[in-house]
Amino acid sequence: MPEVNPSSLPQQPSVPSAQKPRVRRPLRIALFGFGTVGSSVARILVESKPTGLELTHIYVRNVARRHVDWVPASVVWSEDAEAVLTSPDVDVVVELAGGLEPAGDWIRRALTAGKSVVTANKKLIALQGVELERLAVSNGGHLKYGAAVAGGIPVIPGLEQGLNGDRFERIEGILNGTCNFILSGMQEGLEYAPVLAAAQAKGYAEADPTEDVGGFDARAKLSILMRLALRVSVDPEEIVPQPITSITAVDFSYARDLGCTIRQIARAERSGEQIAATVGPMLVDLHSPLSWSRGTENMVVLSGHYGGDVVFSGHGAGGQPTAVAVVSDLLALAHGSRRVAIPSTPARVSAEFEVPHYIRFMVNDKPGIIADITVALASEGINIRAIVQKPGFPAHALPFVMTVEPCKSSALKRALECLRGKDYLLGDPLDLQMLE
Amino acid sequence: MPEVNPSSLPQQPSVPSAQKPRVRRPLRIALFGFGTVGSSVARILVESKPTGLELTHIYVRNVARRHVDWVPASVVWSEDAEAVLTSPDVDVVVELAGGLEPAGDWIRRALTAGKSVVTANKKLIALQGVELERLAVSNGGHLKYGAAVAGGIPVIPGLEQGLNGDRFERIEGILNGTCNFILSGMQEGLEYAPVLAAAQAKGYAEADPTEDVGGFDARAKLSILMRLALRVSVDPEEIVPQPITSITAVDFSYARDLGCTIRQIARAERSGEQIAATVGPMLVDLHSPLSWSRGTENMVVLSGHYGGDVVFSGHGAGGQPTAVAVVSDLLALAHGSRRVAIPSTPARVSAEFEVPHYIRFMVNDKPGIIADITVALASEGINIRAIVQKPGFPAHALPFVMTVEPCKSSALKRALECLRGKDYLLGDPLDLQMLE
Repeated sequence: MPEVNPSSLPQQPSVPSAQKPRVRRPLRIALFGFGTVGSSVARILVESKPTGLELTHIYVRNVARRHVDWVPASVVWSEDAEAVLTSPDVDVVVELAGGLEPAGDWIRRALTAGKSVVTANKKLIALQGVELERLAVSNGGHLKYGAAVAGGIPVIPGLEQGLNGDRFERIEGILNGTCNFILSGMQEGLEYAPVLAAAQAKGYAEADPTEDVGGFDARAKLSILMRLALRVSVDPEEIVPQPITSITAVDFSYARDLGCTIRQIARAERSGEQIAATVGPMLVDLHSPLSWSRGTENMVVLSGHYGGDVVFSGHGAGGQPTAVAVVSDLLALAHGSRRVAIPSTPARVSAEFEVPHYIRFMVNDKPGIIADITVALASEGINIRAIVQKPGFPAHALPFVMTVEPCKSSALKRALECLRGKDYLLGDPLDLQMLE
Repeated sequence: MPEVNPSSLPQQPSVPSAQKPRVRRPLRIALFGFGTVGSSVARILVESKPTGLELTHIYVRNVARRHVDWVPASVVWSEDAEAVLTSPDVDVVVELAGGLEPAGDWIRRALTAGKSVVTANKKLIALQGVELERLAVSNGGHLKYGAAVAGGIPVIPGLEQGLNGDRFERIEGILNGTCNFILSGMQEGLEYAPVLAAAQAKGYAEADPTEDVGGFDARAKLSILMRLALRVSVDPEEIVPQPITSITAVDFSYARDLGCTIRQIARAERSGEQIAATVGPMLVDLHSPLSWSRGTENMVVLSGHYGGDVVFSGHGAGGQPTAVAVVSDLLALAHGSRRVAIPSTPARVSAEFEVPHYIRFMVNDKPGIIADITVALASEGINIRAIVQKPGFPAHALPFVMTVEPCKSSALKRALECLRGKDYLLGDPLDLQMLE
């Protein structure tokens, strides 16, 4: 990596700018966590030697087990978190352990000690980001989390530095690589279970995949993007996720007939003072950029009042792309670049969208079903767009699809509620939003 | 627009950070140029009232003609550039006049006076960016040009802030909205002349479109991206552009048969110490994100050593998207955010790529033509991938296409040179790179 321009060499990040001398020594970095991302960060620091950055400490739970030969001998390996967090020889703590605790405790201690923190911890930033930023500012340090959403895609720096002059009303994103791997695999004809198994074998999915396939991971990331783009701070737990587990090959087949595919989409929009957000499998038009993502790719589409749609895509997860985001945050700190603070106001989240829907019924066929369903939809003033029934299924387990014109989520929910318990229904209808 | 966090309120940008008091007053902005972009910047500043920014001066050549009612009465309109540039009441000069002079002179004066400068001037930044940045640093000011490449798409802040930890070996981009409008229109079946006329009628193309269709605009932008991503400073005039004017409907028809379309692509790559760059119409696979851009959209694909491909797309030009980039740069200055200086080393540019090519011949048909051409290609060791000849053309003006396996640009050039003057050739063959 080339030399940094000497005129912008690193400053101590731990004192406020006004008193800050231009000390020309590297930022001393303590790494907390040495898993996939942590070791990739260390690799880049050791291999590329970015000017202005120096890896000095690595905290791991078991030093004996983790010692690796390519890390310079000058690096202190430690099992003593407290000692590393309070060491005067550490300028920046890089937290890559994930989860709420002890990560949150480490970050609070580091910030309280006036150090800066770089983290990829979406869960913590989603829940406590505003409070942690306040702690950083009041102690003269900085908190950066460019790696917390969509790893290698610079959507957070893009929002802070390049799009801050716009106002955003809508976010749509593919924020979970595991779900995208599964759904784009199903698009190619695989069933859910084998493609999940393949994702687990490749290390893309956990043994318990609930966090990913249930939409919990994506909603944490969505809430962070909402803070930066819609400028509202929300409780991520108010965002109701829909799992992708109920999607079957039949749905991909029907989706294709409708010129669509299916992706896990995280979406949020502001209309007036109302904020709506949700995460779940949705029908995506094959002409939409969101349908182009394959494998573990992530994608974010931001709709700006002045600048129109901006699309970011790339590798959202994995050790190396996430490590690039971490190292880039470190370099920004070393160059004395401030985070552009984007203020947000607290807001409640509803699940009320007004969009078209895809509803797949699985029925034991008999006369009068369509009439029954259309009456229920009409009772809520919902217009049917299309009814599609593909041949080749047995009458006793017949899947068919209705699509409806844009309607309120709550109205459709009530209409489907009226159908609950009907003897022809084999299970609840699958209701998916359609992105337009 | 919401309030800026008080702890990060604007500082005077004109003194270096170490001595800088945290003065809590807005950055005072002088706008040079009040055309499409300039008036959009003023609109955002007046309408959105971003905290920390205050429009105080507008320089125009003829004040009487430009006075508009929605600009606050407090704003000073002036025809005296010198007075505005030296005014102690101006912190930042926003240069939106474009071109080398007088824009360059204004920027140098402003920087020399210790002010900061925000510009969208790709031509000037491509040619003199390194020198102007040096001038800014040595006078304690800042130079920001996020709007100079791909307007509303935050590719420059993305590279500086979010991807700086990676190393890039390749850039491919659609950097000129006019060419993309023309070529994506031709993809829909229009011929060059009427779609150019439509672009001119919509204000997307100049009366003399040479700067755009000749590739000169895109090469300036490419050279800026090369500085930030490949970290080389090059003379943009060493990048040889190929105009899009020789593309016809026949080429789109052949491209489609090959699973491709045609776009003006700016591409650069580093292999070892060699830097290659070019701009011109190229065949783009229909599965590549670059083929998805429509109308005046821009797109940039960066291939990172660690993070893999990152794609940015959006509205690259037009008043409002470009204005968003300008206002975002101003907000970053107001928040005390430094540019992350990305050092570059001077380099020469070659046009030597090793890629497959599409070659379209227009011939007066007679026996032996294919043999003749294949001998010429074989003499340079170039392998033919496919020969495609569509029916329905007259024998005296017969277009047909050969595609060749990856070969050096120079070798293909020599092979085609051997064919020059052949009596069956109606004009020079059209040679396009194919992106893979």
